[in-house]
Amino acid sequence: MAELGTLVLLRHGQSTWNAENLFTGWVDVPLSETGEREARQGGQLLAEAGLLPDVVHTSLLRRAISTANVALDAADRHWIPVKRDWRLNERHYGALQGKNKKQTLDEFGEEQFMLWRRSYDTPPPAIDPKDEFSQAGDARYADLGDRAPLTECLKDVVARLLPYWESAIVPDLQAGRTVLVAAHGNSLRALVKHLDGISDDAIAALNIPTGIPLRYDLTADLKPVKAGGEYLDPEAAKEAAAAVANQGR
Amino acid sequence: MAELGTLVLLRHGQSTWNAENLFTGWVDVPLSETGEREARQGGQLLAEAGLLPDVVHTSLLRRAISTANVALDAADRHWIPVKRDWRLNERHYGALQGKNKKQTLDEFGEEQFMLWRRSYDTPPPAIDPKDEFSQAGDARYADLGDRAPLTECLKDVVARLLPYWESAIVPDLQAGRTVLVAAHGNSLRALVKHLDGISDDAIAALNIPTGIPLRYDLTADLKPVKAGGEYLDPEAAKEAAAAVANQGR
Repeated sequence: MAELGTLVLLRHGQSTWNAENLFTGWVDVPLSETGEREARQGGQLLAEAGLLPDVVHTSLLRRAISTANVALDAADRHWIPVKRDWRLNERHYGALQGKNKKQTLDEFGEEQFMLWRRSYDTPPPAIDPKDEFSQAGDARYADLGDRAPLTECLKDVVARLLPYWESAIVPDLQAGRTVLVAAHGNSLRALVKHLDGISDDAIAALNIPTGIPLRYDLTADLKPVKAGGEYLDPEAAKEAAAAVANQGR
Repeated sequence: MAELGTLVLLRHGQSTWNAENLFTGWVDVPLSETGEREARQGGQLLAEAGLLPDVVHTSLLRRAISTANVALDAADRHWIPVKRDWRLNERHYGALQGKNKKQTLDEFGEEQFMLWRRSYDTPPPAIDPKDEFSQAGDARYADLGDRAPLTECLKDVVARLLPYWESAIVPDLQAGRTVLVAAHGNSLRALVKHLDGISDDAIAALNIPTGIPLRYDLTADLKPVKAGGEYLDPEAAKEAAAAVANQGR
């Protein structure tokens, strides 16, 4: 079967809140210096592999947007078309947004903590619109109105991501383009779950490392030629994924 | 007559080649540290004025793209839609690209120098496709084929800019949007010439300062409510325009 354009996934580098071990979700924090360096290295990996994006899709959050800007600048592809959509945003972490992960673990215990972090269909409590870390009143989500989430589980992320995948990313791939998607741990897990047909249970164990481009070649019916895709730096990806799994400890 | 959305023009900050006094044109040099600071200040001026772009248009050149990225990040509008087009590029400086302005002035004399810099319809000699500063083979212009310019005068810039103004920027204004155009000395002079109906002779004397947003409110028939628009920092704009006029001396 004929192959489509190439899909390249890039999880944003470390943010200032990753560095402080806080739940972030839709709170719009910037990259840390480490995160900017990761983004630059991601762009250098693209350039070294000759994997040059023709178009980039990002979330509406600064850490993914900056990652795309820095990586594309490093790969000399800063000039390609850009598309942004809230459907690529990180999972909304509800009332946990702004909370320390370690404190949350201590306060609620291992079982509840892992349920919120890793269960497929149990969202954290909804955020209060008056909470300082709520996105109520944020102009970028004004068009969403009442449909703007107040919390999300991964199942919710899959449900709001797939319409964008179908309507915006797939057409770029069908046009033969190399498509970079610069997004977040959970929006990319949602996409990988869909692509690789990972079960609701098994997705809990999948961690996507930051700053290392993940390449998917796809068949004409949008199946991965190789399950799980291929990281441009497989050794670094293995180490990083292990580190992510230990967050909050 | 009803007013449209608001147009905001932003000339990129100092590039590394501005700092070295070289003709740049389509050579894709980065911002200097001064240029990045100018871009950030431009974004802060937008935020302080409450003039928040809904969409941004840039050229395909790094110094305009980075200026837009930095300014929008500073104004907390990094998440707005982005459109890029070669028609917003700087004037192609032909065989002068990469040449020192002072040396060119000494070598060719004041009259020829000013003709190339400021006459409306006299382009510099065409660049040789084998010149190290030619854009032959640059992927971002591949679709242009033989229509890619090898040199341009300001008249040429007006001719290639206006189709983009009409087809891409005007519709955004007619939709009531605040539209940021992050571009270059000569592509912005071309646009201002059109908007303000400046004559072919008089445009020679117009200099647009870097990093200071220039606001145009427009009537429904796309005429400026106030001729020449309004700089967000009028005093700084006056000083900067005087400095640009003295370049190459």
